[in-house]
Amino acid sequence: MAIIVHKYGGTSVGTAEKIKNVACRVKKTRDQGDEVLVIVSAMGHTTDELIELMNKVSENPDPREYDMLVSTGEQVSAALLAMALQSIGCPAVSLTGGQAGVITEDIYKKARIKEIKLDRIKKELKAGKVAVITGFQGVDSKGDIITIGRGGSDTSAVAIAAALNAKVCEIYTDVDGVYTTDPRIVPEAKKLKSISYEEMLELASLGAQVLHPRSIECASIYGMVIHLRSSLNESEGTYIKEATKMEKKEAVRGIALDENIAKIGILKVPDKPGTASKIFGALADEKINVDMIIQSIHSQGTQADMAFTVDTPDLKKAVEIAKRVAKELGAAEVISDPDVAKVSLVGIGMVSQPGTASKMFKALSESKINIQMISTSEIKISCVVKFEEGKKAVQVLHKAFGLDKISQ
Amino acid sequence: MAIIVHKYGGTSVGTAEKIKNVACRVKKTRDQGDEVLVIVSAMGHTTDELIELMNKVSENPDPREYDMLVSTGEQVSAALLAMALQSIGCPAVSLTGGQAGVITEDIYKKARIKEIKLDRIKKELKAGKVAVITGFQGVDSKGDIITIGRGGSDTSAVAIAAALNAKVCEIYTDVDGVYTTDPRIVPEAKKLKSISYEEMLELASLGAQVLHPRSIECASIYGMVIHLRSSLNESEGTYIKEATKMEKKEAVRGIALDENIAKIGILKVPDKPGTASKIFGALADEKINVDMIIQSIHSQGTQADMAFTVDTPDLKKAVEIAKRVAKELGAAEVISDPDVAKVSLVGIGMVSQPGTASKMFKALSESKINIQMISTSEIKISCVVKFEEGKKAVQVLHKAFGLDKISQ
Repeated sequence: MAIIVHKYGGTSVGTAEKIKNVACRVKKTRDQGDEVLVIVSAMGHTTDELIELMNKVSENPDPREYDMLVSTGEQVSAALLAMALQSIGCPAVSLTGGQAGVITEDIYKKARIKEIKLDRIKKELKAGKVAVITGFQGVDSKGDIITIGRGGSDTSAVAIAAALNAKVCEIYTDVDGVYTTDPRIVPEAKKLKSISYEEMLELASLGAQVLHPRSIECASIYGMVIHLRSSLNESEGTYIKEATKMEKKEAVRGIALDENIAKIGILKVPDKPGTASKIFGALADEKINVDMIIQSIHSQGTQADMAFTVDTPDLKKAVEIAKRVAKELGAAEVISDPDVAKVSLVGIGMVSQPGTASKMFKALSESKINIQMISTSEIKISCVVKFEEGKKAVQVLHKAFGLDKISQ
Repeated sequence: MAIIVHKYGGTSVGTAEKIKNVACRVKKTRDQGDEVLVIVSAMGHTTDELIELMNKVSENPDPREYDMLVSTGEQVSAALLAMALQSIGCPAVSLTGGQAGVITEDIYKKARIKEIKLDRIKKELKAGKVAVITGFQGVDSKGDIITIGRGGSDTSAVAIAAALNAKVCEIYTDVDGVYTTDPRIVPEAKKLKSISYEEMLELASLGAQVLHPRSIECASIYGMVIHLRSSLNESEGTYIKEATKMEKKEAVRGIALDENIAKIGILKVPDKPGTASKIFGALADEKINVDMIIQSIHSQGTQADMAFTVDTPDLKKAVEIAKRVAKELGAAEVISDPDVAKVSLVGIGMVSQPGTASKMFKALSESKINIQMISTSEIKISCVVKFEEGKKAVQVLHKAFGLDKISQ
């Protein structure tokens, strides 16, 4: 008898009808003889509605009270799912994060899980019950309710699955797996049977928002197999797990497009030690996430141009900071461009196949797509191109690397 | 520095705007130098909405899951009120029943409070914060969330106030106090400045639904003064406390009308020992609350007629049971009448003024109102009359006992 963890997101438990469907699916798994735990998110737009109410009573809500407020959403879905399970003859019990023994750091709104005390969960499983646990939350050392930040329910599911040594953590969502690229851009995109943690992490960080990066990190640390699949059908989705030998042979496994970035350049920065730390320190202080950074020596040799990308919503603030720091440093000018997109190739085999980058650049240049910035990591190559050329770049590369022909 | 407990019901915290008003009122009390605790109910129709959802997923929901579900309503209002307080510069913290140390019996849906562990509440008060506590709930020995039944938030407020030795427990509602009778029936009805626990208990049991009987019982045990007042204005309401000498002189303090009753008669029951226990035992088994019971010896001497009242919603089921038991006992017939109402005089001074009952009967007979059943207790006299004559009976009695002339 193995332990299987299911996780259902807000859309999958959005209505009473959907909750009943989830109950049937859970019961089916349990009827196959396994012990089942279910992690649930808040129903549909519950969290947004609570936040709307919150904004009406307070302009700057206390993070502690925020957690107290929004954590109710998961509690409602957990109780309803437990009831739905019982009503089809499947013994079940709902547990809050605290009751399930999920202990977090003492940080409101974005704590990490420190420990999972399994006594209660084990007791309920032993009593033959399906444990339905509120995702996204735990309690701190004071017993206060703590939420664990965006994508928290995925992380809850993986952490609980890992603590229990579950066979698999099945994450149900409204897509049916991970594709070689966004099928809306490339209709020939193929669903991957499996993908490694590292590759999934890169794809998730690049905006493939099916799984939160933290949950993948957590799964990777504990070697927990995630099965990402659709709550709308029975078909197999994509397994996220240790890379197989086969996968390591493939240079490129997936292509991601991030259209939500903007480019900033600081020109003619006097080339002195500490310059970069001044610029990026100031941005970090304001919690602005900087992605690609390129420093190019200027023709004169004593000056450098710095270019970097930020998320589009941060652009205005980032430019403001860049102008202030540029003045302090005696740089010539700050330029910015919101009309860019980032195309990335991801593949764990890239590390052993050095020709990938040049093949990428060649394919783009043959399609007359100009590359504005390049950054590479062991398993990723990203290029910044004009916004209008982003989708075309993905299509060109998907074909060039034969991703439409693979049968994985 | 005294401790003052405020309690706000669902209507008083029904919208973001109303929550902000409550925050202002709480802050005002605190600015006067007292320590303040606030007990809140769920916003407006939240509980009903949750129950509606529940009924869609389960026909016979588990009481444990019911508690898990509905307790979220109070948690939402507590968090929002804490935020609203903070946003007007009043330090505050919300606490669930469990966090506030409210320990209940291990019975879902209708537990009694066993104990209040004050550590956390005291710590928060010491830190200068207003503690906003979810009403209606606590935790049991397993840490499961338990609700404490209908009217639970009033009881939570009184119990917490008593445990903290608060100066007063102010219960805010949409009426501005306790009246000599329902002002919709008698426009001359007067607001009482104060009323004793016993009288309030009788009035509450008689359908004056401003305060739940359990909360009054609890206040009476601990001698906690309740100030029942309106959340819509600043005027003084009614104090519920030990009877004063003055009050003991008044025979009649209030008149209640309960239109939600029905009468059942079992005719010609063979007069044998155990008959009554058979009838009322069977009704109790089905959780049907029986109020007035009258057994009259039938003309023949070996048979008796039994009459009793039940709440109207229970009538159908009660008749069914009565018919079954009547058959077993060999009784002649079961009759029922939903068109009745109960008029009651309540007053702690009644015990020392024996003329009250006859004065009541006389006033009713002079107005040609026929009395169908009578029952008396030390501080109450109730008469069942025709439904159509209920309101008139109240008006007649209000005048006969001079309640429109008192100035309390």
